[in-house]
Amino acid sequence: MTKTSNVSETRLLLSRNLRKYREAAKISQEELADISGLHRTYVSSVERGERNISIDNIERLANALNLKPSILLESDR
Amino acid sequence: MTKTSNVSETRLLLSRNLRKYREAAKISQEELADISGLHRTYVSSVERGERNISIDNIERLANALNLKPSILLESDR
Repeated sequence: MTKTSNVSETRLLLSRNLRKYREAAKISQEELADISGLHRTYVSSVERGERNISIDNIERLANALNLKPSILLESDR
Repeated sequence: MTKTSNVSETRLLLSRNLRKYREAAKISQEELADISGLHRTYVSSVERGERNISIDNIERLANALNLKPSILLESDR
């Protein structure tokens, strides 16, 4: 089911950042889903890098976490 | 045809940044399309904020412009 081989570098960045900032905000995937108006299973699959998420949904997640959208694509290296 | 009213803030950031960095690279929309492997009319509509572009295509455009994807979503304010 999981396909890490084919995942773009940018999806991996988003995946890592989403988890990092969600955990820093001390909220679950379900809570993030509620706040952002997205489905729980969708948020879960985005966090695993499985979805080719759109810019509008990146914005929703960023808003839910009180972050600028660009932060979610940033590399820490 | 143009719908600026309904466009998300993040699309506007991408729109402005894409134009700015494309022009800085001195390439046309057609050339950017060729380099990124996207269609010319698609690149044009993304630059007008009309498309809910996906993360994989944001990566393609960023790669074509030798930029980190996060740069394309940054605000200069």
